[in-house]
Formats: sequence, C-alpha cells, structure tokens
Amino acid sequence: MGSLASAKANVLIVGSGGVGTMAAYALEKSGKASVTAVLRSNFAAVHDAGFQINSLDHGEIRNWRPSQIRNSVPNVAQEKDLQPYDYVVVTTKNIADVSPTVAEIIAPAVTPGHTAITLLQNGLNIEKPIIAAFPQNPVVSGISFIGATEGPLGTIKHDDHDTLVVGPFTNPNIPAGVSEAAAKQFVNAYSCAGVDCVLEPDVRFWRWRKLLYNSSYNTVATILRMDTSRMRVSEHVIDNLIRPVMHEIRATAKAAAGVDLPEELIERMITIDTFEAFFKPSMLQDMEKGNYIEFENIAGEPLREAERAGVPTPTLKVIYELLKGLQWQTKEAKGLIRMPLKSDPSLKYGTKHPRVVT
Amino acid sequence: MGSLASAKANVLIVGSGGVGTMAAYALEKSGKASVTAVLRSNFAAVHDAGFQINSLDHGEIRNWRPSQIRNSVPNVAQEKDLQPYDYVVVTTKNIADVSPTVAEIIAPAVTPGHTAITLLQNGLNIEKPIIAAFPQNPVVSGISFIGATEGPLGTIKHDDHDTLVVGPFTNPNIPAGVSEAAAKQFVNAYSCAGVDCVLEPDVRFWRWRKLLYNSSYNTVATILRMDTSRMRVSEHVIDNLIRPVMHEIRATAKAAAGVDLPEELIERMITIDTFEAFFKPSMLQDMEKGNYIEFENIAGEPLREAERAGVPTPTLKVIYELLKGLQWQTKEAKGLIRMPLKSDPSLKYGTKHPRVVT
Repeated sequence: MGSLASAKANVLIVGSGGVGTMAAYALEKSGKASVTAVLRSNFAAVHDAGFQINSLDHGEIRNWRPSQIRNSVPNVAQEKDLQPYDYVVVTTKNIADVSPTVAEIIAPAVTPGHTAITLLQNGLNIEKPIIAAFPQNPVVSGISFIGATEGPLGTIKHDDHDTLVVGPFTNPNIPAGVSEAAAKQFVNAYSCAGVDCVLEPDVRFWRWRKLLYNSSYNTVATILRMDTSRMRVSEHVIDNLIRPVMHEIRATAKAAAGVDLPEELIERMITIDTFEAFFKPSMLQDMEKGNYIEFENIAGEPLREAERAGVPTPTLKVIYELLKGLQWQTKEAKGLIRMPLKSDPSLKYGTKHPRVVT
Repeated sequence: MGSLASAKANVLIVGSGGVGTMAAYALEKSGKASVTAVLRSNFAAVHDAGFQINSLDHGEIRNWRPSQIRNSVPNVAQEKDLQPYDYVVVTTKNIADVSPTVAEIIAPAVTPGHTAITLLQNGLNIEKPIIAAFPQNPVVSGISFIGATEGPLGTIKHDDHDTLVVGPFTNPNIPAGVSEAAAKQFVNAYSCAGVDCVLEPDVRFWRWRKLLYNSSYNTVATILRMDTSRMRVSEHVIDNLIRPVMHEIRATAKAAAGVDLPEELIERMITIDTFEAFFKPSMLQDMEKGNYIEFENIAGEPLREAERAGVPTPTLKVIYELLKGLQWQTKEAKGLIRMPLKSDPSLKYGTKHPRVVT
C-alpha cells in the first residue's frame, strides 16, 4: 500500500452514484488520497462540467471532479503508465445472482497481493467471492449510513450525514494485521471535516446489525411496495412480518456467527426511520426503477446461515423466495430469461393435464 | 321453497358479472326458475339492450334479459307485492374484511326460515357469518369452474365450460334434510342443456380441494403479480412456494376437517392451467384493477383452521400477512384508511428515536 507519510493513497472508486461520489469527495478532501472514479451513465456530464453537489456536510459544491475520471474499469496489467491501486472501493449495488459480479467487474483493476478491496455495500458474506477471486488481497468492510442520491446526471443531493463504519473482513489467507492495517489506513484517508469515518474492528457485529433493518424493512417494503411509515401505521405489518424477521436475524447472528445483537435494538430499529419521510428503502427504489435487487446478500445469505446453524427462519424463508420470484421477472424484462410462448417437453412444469374438474 | 312440480323457483341473483349472468341464463333456460338479477354498474346497459353473451356452451345470445332486473337488493318485508325468494344466489366477491359484508348485502332479500342462500363463491367458512345472521335458513355451496367475464358493460364472454359443484353447507340449527333438499332442488333448477351442475354432498371436500389452488396460486400470483405459466417456467416459485402451500393446505384439511385430499392431486393441480393462457388468477386480476381481494376466506380461514388444529403452515402464514398488507393499501386508496402526515402520540409505532447509528 502507498505510504501515507510520503504519498497519497491511489484509490479507484467503482460506482459513482450518491454514495460513491461522496466517498470520492471525502477521500480527496482529506488530502490523503488521489481518486480515480469509474463513471458510467454520468461520464459525459461529469467530464464536461464536473459534479454539482448539494451536501449537508460539505455545503454547495460546483463543477467538482476527482483527480481522474474513467468510463471503464482500468486494466492495470495492460496499461503501462498506471500505478497499482492501493484501494479499489466498490459502491455499486451487489447483485450476486447476475453477471458480471463484483469480482468480475473489478478484476482488471486489482493488483494481486496489493490492492485493498473495500466494499461499501450492504449484505452478508459479500467478501467471500472477493476472497475466492483475490485470495492474497485484504478486503475491507464499509457500512455506510449516508443519505446521498444522484438526481440529474452528475447532480448529487447529500441529505443525511456521512457516517461510515469501517473494519477488516477476515481473509484467512493473509495475516490479520495486513487486513487490519488496510482498514485503519482507509479510515485515515477518508477522515476529513464533516464526516464520521470510524474504525470498528468487529465487522460481523456491524454487518448483522444492519441486516436487522435490511432483511426486514428493505425486503418487505419491496414485496409490498410500501413505505416504512405506512407499515408502522398498519401495525400488523410490523407485528407479523418486520419484527418476526428481526428476531430470526438476531437468533441467526447468535447461532451462526456468535454475534450478540441486543434484544432492545429490535424495538429501536422498528421506529428508526423519520416517520414524516415515508421512507422507501433502497431495494424498493431499485425495483420501482426496474433494476435488479440485491436480495441474495440481504435475504439469501442470512437464510443460508440460518439453515446451516439450524435456526428456524420461516418468515425470512418465504420472503426470500418471493424476492427471487420478483428478480426472475426483472431478469425476463431485461432479456436474461426468455419466456416460452408454448409449452414444450423440456419444461419441468409444462402442460401435463387438460383443465378438468375431477 | 316453491314446489318444483307446480311453480318455478323464485331466484334472486346478487352479483351479475360473468359468473352471475351465466347462472341467471342457466336457471332461466332450464325453465324451472324465474330470475331477478340485481345489477349495479351494468344496470342501464342491460335495462336498455339486455345482455350480449358469447358462450361456448350456449352460443351467441343477443339482447337477453332475465325475468326481472333491479338496481338494488329488494326488501321483501317492505315491498308488499314481492314473493319470498326461494333462493338468493350470491356471485359477488366475498370480501370478509370490508363492509358491507355478504350477510349485510343480502339481508333485505332473505325471508327467515325460507330462503336458501346459495353462495357461488370461493373460500373457506364463508357460510359461517351467513348462518350466524340467518340461523334458520339453509345455506348452499356452489363451486364454479366456469370461465366467464364481463367486458364492456352487459357484454359477457363465456369461454370455459360451466361446471358447477353444489352441496349443502351444514347448518346445525335446522334438520340436515332441509339443507340437502335445497341443494338438490338448486341442481335441478340449474340443470339444462350445455351445463354440468352436479350434486356433491361432501361440501368440505370440494371446498378444501379448490383451496389447494386458490390458497397457493391465487395468493402467490397476487403478491408477485405473476401469471401461473411464468411461475412454472421459474420452477423455484413452484418448488418453494406453490407446492409447500399445497402441502400445508392438504395437511390442514386432514387435521382440521378430516378431509382426505389425495397427494397426487397436488402434482396435477400444479399443471392444471393451460400453459399457453399465461393465466392470471382472479385475485391478481382484482388487485390489478385496484379492487379489494378476498384473501380472508382464501388464506386467512385455512390459516386459522391450521392454527386451531396445530398444523404448521409457515408458508401460508407469511403469504396471508403480506396479502393483508396489500389489502391495507387498497383500503387507504379507497379512503377507508387515512394515512397521517405526521407522527403523533396515538401511533403505536410513531417517531420514537431520531435516526442515529449507535
């Protein structure tokens, strides 16, 4: 990794929507990192005029650009004049069941044994395919509590304080100290006036803690297309869906990972959203836009952990299967699945019986 | 009840969409009933020009009217020239959780101790509020397998054969023979060329049998907004949602009602819909139109039977709670529920905590 005493950290950010842009801004503002941002839909807008940022932490910022922008993930092995990236920071959605996966997307920019892959993403076990693909690299966890969204291309509205909880994922192939140092240096590089970037070494606690909300509110909101305030007024959605999932997550955290989530956290989490915001969790927003949902890491992985540990999670199970049915339809809409117009013998559940009564 | 030897049965039909109109047609065609149809949205169209029916059983029928049409439920106690109705046939949706209920709707037309209330409706325990409201009346079960829908007002497309399975509900307040005779006479009055109206005394078997489909396909289709052919191509929706619910219903039928549904019925029911029809079950159609869904009798009642009998129904439970969340939103959309714009102390889950991290 670059020495912080002598040089700025060389950082690539993949995914430059609200969260990614504010991360780029903090890393540059600190003076301890030089950021290359990979832009997709907003590349032309930012290339021409930079970002326009309205930030509750940093104020009104016009025509801002990170040190470099790119419209694709750089290939460090092929591009001779590129320095290795000390950090590849991923702020995209994590869609585990659709190619290209995160590991596939970032592969060209990762220098084996050097780059610290830093995942500012939701969900459980997201480090596993990364470690499988890059076994000698440290992987860093970032759990973001920021509120930041891109409106028109290149225009960021940052309206909830940037608190980022960072810690090292466990990579059994390398010394723990390497991962810990990578996390610590990242906190250092991110820290600047206006943001709270904190080192919390117990990554599992924080991942499971955030799942309390994401596995319950995020998923049920998506299935019901319902904001969290309406769920709370209905009461029964909380009592018979949200709270049961939270208890299932808490029991699974304990049994599968030895993580003790305080029971009173559940009641606090139920009323965590500002009522007047009629908040639509991110997965619901994704579905309303016709985008893929990151249900595998938010519902599927905790469910599989529960099944391995023998924890009953009947509510999460059905919710997971329903989300998978929603994702199937998005895959069809995006052309990944082609729906046959007629039954044919290759179909497991093709036409077997005429419509008869007895 | 009217003697069939001497006079036509005096029948009131409440709910004159596809199913109700074809029932009216069969009852009049048999020559054994005189039908009064209560029309709502289509009253003016039918008053002026009658029904236009395109029927696979009866052919092309123009300008057809039952013996009488009304635009409200008649009040037999107040209207002096009305004969008591031998049958009040209900073909509306059964929305148990929204007033007016079926019992409230038909009350003015029911003559205590005389009228046989005949429910051509889906779901379980639909007779219970009827018997509670009219304890001395026979109640008749009709399970319809017809395909008939109203397009433009007064225009009926009847495209799947009219098979109607009829039997007596158990009313413990009156002799069984009275209920049985009412069911038998109804079959007689309905039977005519082109229809199959069969007396099946075991009402519970047929109700539970139809629930195999309705509690699984109808409910999951509504939540996922997905036709049954797509579910079958996805495979996992069948394997992890539809089939589990069917097994839960089968176990509940056995434990709660002593009804033996053959296990092989489950696999046959899974492929019962014509694949090429991309069939959207009725509850999904209702939801797409913004109408209330009859989820209490299709999911709620079997769930409550299972809970009473101690049968685990984890899949049905979550599905029921989700449907209740969808119905809540329809109630809000129709003005039955008013969403508060701000939190207030009367809310069980109003604002308790500011959005904080720790």
